[in-house]
Amino acid sequence: MTDGAKPASGEDSLIARYFKPLATDPGAFNLTDDAAILRASGDDIVVTTDAIVEGVHFLVDDPPDTIARKALRVNLSDLAAKGATPAGFVLTLALRSADDAWLKPFARGLGEDASHFGCPLLGGDTVSTPGPQMISITAFGRLPPGKMVHRSGAKPGDRVVVTGTIGDAALGLDILKGGAVAAAMAGDAAGRDRLIGRYRVPQPRTALASAVRDHAHAAMDVSDGLAGDLAKLCAASGVSAVIDARSVPLSAAAATLLAGGTVGIEAIVSGGDDYEILCAISENRFEAFAHAADLAGVAVTSIGTVIAGSSVPRFLDNAGREIALPRLSYSHF
Amino acid sequence: MTDGAKPASGEDSLIARYFKPLATDPGAFNLTDDAAILRASGDDIVVTTDAIVEGVHFLVDDPPDTIARKALRVNLSDLAAKGATPAGFVLTLALRSADDAWLKPFARGLGEDASHFGCPLLGGDTVSTPGPQMISITAFGRLPPGKMVHRSGAKPGDRVVVTGTIGDAALGLDILKGGAVAAAMAGDAAGRDRLIGRYRVPQPRTALASAVRDHAHAAMDVSDGLAGDLAKLCAASGVSAVIDARSVPLSAAAATLLAGGTVGIEAIVSGGDDYEILCAISENRFEAFAHAADLAGVAVTSIGTVIAGSSVPRFLDNAGREIALPRLSYSHF
Repeated sequence: MTDGAKPASGEDSLIARYFKPLATDPGAFNLTDDAAILRASGDDIVVTTDAIVEGVHFLVDDPPDTIARKALRVNLSDLAAKGATPAGFVLTLALRSADDAWLKPFARGLGEDASHFGCPLLGGDTVSTPGPQMISITAFGRLPPGKMVHRSGAKPGDRVVVTGTIGDAALGLDILKGGAVAAAMAGDAAGRDRLIGRYRVPQPRTALASAVRDHAHAAMDVSDGLAGDLAKLCAASGVSAVIDARSVPLSAAAATLLAGGTVGIEAIVSGGDDYEILCAISENRFEAFAHAADLAGVAVTSIGTVIAGSSVPRFLDNAGREIALPRLSYSHF
Repeated sequence: MTDGAKPASGEDSLIARYFKPLATDPGAFNLTDDAAILRASGDDIVVTTDAIVEGVHFLVDDPPDTIARKALRVNLSDLAAKGATPAGFVLTLALRSADDAWLKPFARGLGEDASHFGCPLLGGDTVSTPGPQMISITAFGRLPPGKMVHRSGAKPGDRVVVTGTIGDAALGLDILKGGAVAAAMAGDAAGRDRLIGRYRVPQPRTALASAVRDHAHAAMDVSDGLAGDLAKLCAASGVSAVIDARSVPLSAAAATLLAGGTVGIEAIVSGGDDYEILCAISENRFEAFAHAADLAGVAVTSIGTVIAGSSVPRFLDNAGREIALPRLSYSHF
């Protein structure tokens, strides 16, 4: 806090050292100004904002590069689900201290992801906090005017479709917390690492954005749990849904844990942190969507059907009985 | 965290109850979606982000409506200094709990300011934290393509100009912390309240944005202290400056405290939290700028001159001697 008579503060040199290399867009002005520019392009700008908090969305001992990747990817996941192409992001870092050993890998991970996903850093703010560290990102995407895919728009008869596999991140978190999954997988270090990796570094389905835009009636990313997020999508669309729980796509590890009774399906579908895309696709578009997903290298699975009504979506077991879900998803309050 | 089988979580109902009324822009979709839209308009979009942290930028006992106003206004101040018209903002709230007694006035203050400054809420994220509360806002403005006013661009011979008065917010913070200013103003409750008000609720110079855009070579808002922020503007412009400390505009209270020796000029010019606009205006534009400022109802004062060179700007006293500044501004690290 005492700079002597030098114009560059510790905060400025921190930004110059670690974050300027990430500001590759001309509209970022090398982070030397108070604001950035998103140039007029004729596209709509999609804006989304998601924060991750130490102890809630990441753990204090998580590798800093994975924390950075998660902070950006949870936002990229939203953009993809809305059908938007990444355009850039701004970053607010609330840190306890400017610790090089933490900041260096953090900035490296963030930079690699920004480059990989074509989403350059445009600006930010760095503040000190005595409390848990927090990373808040606002990300921008572009799409043709009026083409954003909404939560609303699902129609009775649509297929309910998800990408990837569901539940792995929640299982990974259970391992990090030393829960039942950790015990059940005590002999399988590689399997544990895969699940932990799913919690720490989600895989945004950026490659699927244009297919979602072209084919989905409604879409959102699954961040708080499949059951709860599907309920939100249905409520926004004024519809309900029936899900065949057997068809919810699982990783081999999740399937084994489920078969062995370590976890129940209700934990899988309400666990959160999946960052897969959930969407409603009309029957006559499903084949084209699945083909586009295949070309994009993203697995998609049809797990049920949108129906008329306003009841909370039902998850049915092998015998067609409704599965009781004590909670649908994670909520902060 | 346990919602039973209801689609609306505590977080969702908090958002619906308090923040949906602020989402007056059609691009906010009533906060029922995962992202917002800034429509294509042919304008450049200016993006700025600033966070405020409990215990650093506001105090735990500050009235919630003032905390909300400050969170938005520090961002509006950046937009104004860049010459941009407000277009909207997204909000990340890190709260210890969803406390109605705190949230209700917070949302009211935020809504009043959003309406007053024409800057509607577009979206946000709400997370729980055990630590200090924090409000991070990313704000958007519009201006004609290529017309953003930068920190760089100041030229030797330009006047150095500031809006309003300098130092009041730092004096207000000293009062809240029970410092020397509190003792010196023990008999002047109204005066104390005015200074505290300047700390808690800055006055963004939104009305001056178009005049800055039309006339300033360079501009930024004074958030970390006049001396430090001027040094940043000069460094970005590759120039230096000489400031006549006597001409730095002061409130009556600040002038009295300075004359009485309670505070020195160095505390005034390095105090921070002013949220005034600092700009460089060529001599032949100053009259037109001052006229536009007068029409906008914003006081502007010429405090010195941009000169060639790369040294840190000097502040001169009545006798023309350089004033020693032990620190130029506030830095978080």
